[in-house]
Amino acid sequence: MITDPIEKIEIRPLYDLESGTWTYLLLEKTSKLSVLIDPVLERMERDLSHIQELGYKLSATIDTHMHADHITSAGVLGEKTNSEAFASEHSGAECASKFLKDEDLFSIGNLKFRVLHTPGHTPCSLSLLLNGKYLFSGDALFVRGCGRTDFQGGSADDLYKSITEKLFSLPDETIVLPGHDYKGFLSTTIGEEKKWNPRIAGKSLSEFKEIMDNLNLPEPKKIHEAVPANRACGKVS
Amino acid sequence: MITDPIEKIEIRPLYDLESGTWTYLLLEKTSKLSVLIDPVLERMERDLSHIQELGYKLSATIDTHMHADHITSAGVLGEKTNSEAFASEHSGAECASKFLKDEDLFSIGNLKFRVLHTPGHTPCSLSLLLNGKYLFSGDALFVRGCGRTDFQGGSADDLYKSITEKLFSLPDETIVLPGHDYKGFLSTTIGEEKKWNPRIAGKSLSEFKEIMDNLNLPEPKKIHEAVPANRACGKVS
Repeated sequence: MITDPIEKIEIRPLYDLESGTWTYLLLEKTSKLSVLIDPVLERMERDLSHIQELGYKLSATIDTHMHADHITSAGVLGEKTNSEAFASEHSGAECASKFLKDEDLFSIGNLKFRVLHTPGHTPCSLSLLLNGKYLFSGDALFVRGCGRTDFQGGSADDLYKSITEKLFSLPDETIVLPGHDYKGFLSTTIGEEKKWNPRIAGKSLSEFKEIMDNLNLPEPKKIHEAVPANRACGKVS
Repeated sequence: MITDPIEKIEIRPLYDLESGTWTYLLLEKTSKLSVLIDPVLERMERDLSHIQELGYKLSATIDTHMHADHITSAGVLGEKTNSEAFASEHSGAECASKFLKDEDLFSIGNLKFRVLHTPGHTPCSLSLLLNGKYLFSGDALFVRGCGRTDFQGGSADDLYKSITEKLFSLPDETIVLPGHDYKGFLSTTIGEEKKWNPRIAGKSLSEFKEIMDNLNLPEPKKIHEAVPANRACGKVS
């Protein structure tokens, strides 16, 4: 967990071993309100129990994009806890209660969010900067990697621009908490990724595109089920 | 990552997806020295690259016990980086360069360790308290769980005592970073585990023993290979 006594907030990363997804539980210590970023349907009971044990109320869920590899628990959590479901204005998530757009600012107590539209993995992909210090980079920037761009309207051109122009303009010490990891890493910083990201550091757009064009990744098992289900906030019949 | 600007240290958890092991990379920001707790042989290249990219020197490895489910990289890292290998005085690790015993205090720059002998999972199991705030609990205490006690001289009596008398006497706000997790949790606190650990909270010794006697877990796949290999600090031929 990352405890930040100055901001009176705490960040608890929760991992889904099946899809390699990092869900983030954000705790607002003054009001005892909490937020989940990218919650996974199959881990809903774990996440909800954990929030209840800690004595918090779930205020909102935020999906950084419409996932192809897992289904969000946003809708089911909304029914169970009355939490709001936040998603991008470009997400097509008709079920969302609030739509986020680039440079939106919103707060839940001491949790102060700035929305960054970072398309590339999908056209609707968002990153979220929390209290100016912590970047939830969704499937844009990973630890020594990045999201794939070969389906769902993905664009290597857009992703290169999102990472190099938007995310890399944040301070070097910004802590990056990605939407996925497959190698056992938890987090990184903007400064490190500028220097060490093997796909992007020192790479031109054309070099990046060549790397992305040659990843030869298998199609996510759940893509045909997950994308429509996520547009319905995971309220699958 | 947990950054602690007051102590001038940083903790980077690194996960081994195969064995569910949390390895911890500790960074001492003033001297640029680092320590690895419970490093895994198969993840050695990842861990060493990461340390080098961050611009740190590996000073020591610490094994909290002789693992049955994975092989330590302590010996190989020692050969590659001249790092010291620390292990319990009860470990039988003839290869270790320093033996740790209950209530030992030692420092590597601003990394200030207190050793707690917490037998139960194995007779040699240690926990490490870092700078009085962060408890590396090895295979004694997990998030909402604990290490098994059904092989390698394990003892449910000893583990109950180690957790309830030794670890639960630490301040409630102590951050607990366990040696394993299988459910996607990263960390917890002493206060939470006192209240919510399903095996220990409110449970008598006899109730705990009944739970531990009925876990019916399979034998770790690597036990016959890992235990002797770990006594040789992972320097397997």
